[in-house]
Amino acid sequence: MSQRPLILICNDDGITAPGIIALVNAVKDLGEVIIVAPDSPQSAMGHAVTISKPLRMEQTKLYGEIRSYQCSGTPADCVKLAVDKVLHRKPDLLLSGINHGSNSSINILYSGTMSAAMEGAIEGIPAAGISLCDFSYDADFSIASKIARDVAKNIIQNGLPAGVLLNVNVPKVKSDSFKGTRICRQALAKWEEEFDERLDPNGKKYFWLSGKFVNFDKGDDTDEWALANNYASIVPVQYDLTAHNAISYLNQWTIKHED
Amino acid sequence: MSQRPLILICNDDGITAPGIIALVNAVKDLGEVIIVAPDSPQSAMGHAVTISKPLRMEQTKLYGEIRSYQCSGTPADCVKLAVDKVLHRKPDLLLSGINHGSNSSINILYSGTMSAAMEGAIEGIPAAGISLCDFSYDADFSIASKIARDVAKNIIQNGLPAGVLLNVNVPKVKSDSFKGTRICRQALAKWEEEFDERLDPNGKKYFWLSGKFVNFDKGDDTDEWALANNYASIVPVQYDLTAHNAISYLNQWTIKHED
Repeated sequence: MSQRPLILICNDDGITAPGIIALVNAVKDLGEVIIVAPDSPQSAMGHAVTISKPLRMEQTKLYGEIRSYQCSGTPADCVKLAVDKVLHRKPDLLLSGINHGSNSSINILYSGTMSAAMEGAIEGIPAAGISLCDFSYDADFSIASKIARDVAKNIIQNGLPAGVLLNVNVPKVKSDSFKGTRICRQALAKWEEEFDERLDPNGKKYFWLSGKFVNFDKGDDTDEWALANNYASIVPVQYDLTAHNAISYLNQWTIKHED
Repeated sequence: MSQRPLILICNDDGITAPGIIALVNAVKDLGEVIIVAPDSPQSAMGHAVTISKPLRMEQTKLYGEIRSYQCSGTPADCVKLAVDKVLHRKPDLLLSGINHGSNSSINILYSGTMSAAMEGAIEGIPAAGISLCDFSYDADFSIASKIARDVAKNIIQNGLPAGVLLNVNVPKVKSDSFKGTRICRQALAKWEEEFDERLDPNGKKYFWLSGKFVNFDKGDDTDEWALANNYASIVPVQYDLTAHNAISYLNQWTIKHED
């Protein structure tokens, strides 16, 4: 690489979250860092993009010498705006996070953090999302910061296969219990909904989304296994959602067209 | 099947959209239909779920004898609410759509229609999203309605492999040019962003998301090829996003932990 690596940083907890500050500090000496992140929390936004209203984006002074921009949109919007309006060339790396809370297994689908990373991958940018399994504002990001730095160095040095990004999750453990990283597959898991049903002061119903995480997957090669056993999980992720194995089965269907 | 099939219908254009009305009419004699759909347009919401505010859901009389509910949340919220609060048993089929506009190739990631179907699949419900490649309110849903009915009958009769849902897209063609259905893979494509930058009356910048669709994929087994050649595309889709092929490559990485 003839020039300093260009590193785009995004998240979904918003540009002031401790997790993104930890991430910036972890990698700022590895290259030129530019931050484009939401101006307010955008957790659970999935891969939403904003088409029905316009977006705002403004430069901030939050990170001193490091260029940073806050955007009114979703994490995916931030990456799109960065690519089109902020960056002078394609970045060598996109890092999203460090998320306050797990994005392992099925949570990847709901995660704004991972959608920012995926949007980067779609743009051809080597990308990783990093999450710490601790929702609290005062979470200890020290292990996750080291992992983020290690992953960043590996990607800058080795690249990633085309169409592949990384979903990195770090367990909430003390440093002397932490066992290192494992390459994993996404565990088969889901949330069982249990909406909390309430009445407003006018007697009308409303619902809070709530639920119980259920892991159906007993494999020891999954991200959930790794996290439960004090490893950080690294899952290679693709945005080709085709279930290739199902194509031959479906070709046996006889789709009839009624008149 | 000992009882009438139970069919849950959702969409992302909202409960009053012509596309969902067409879908209900296409399949209402195949079983007991229940509709839970957004009370306003939720296009491009991806797999967002609502965690920072409560949801409203109210029964409507829009569909006469057919039970219908409008919900203030995203398409994925609608499915979660339906499963937890509306349905008396797990449905035999979830249909999402008919969407006004294509959800082929990379559009699946941004699509609220497909996220509703995917949320169903995660819940273990055989599911399909159906989209017509015509954004207009007055689109002609006649071919898409027939395809939706055919797909519904096939799923009710044959089921779908575990963890697999269908992304069905129907071209905007006249009936005498339509060539039938093809089982396809997701084309490798993306949107090239071209934000429309404007100034508000106070002289401050804002941005409208806009872009150009680019298909990099020359294969004749893709959804984009099928649609361009007057076929409806049926892509089997999975929510296991693991790039299994990349696991052995990543295991060669030496992730060092600095102290």
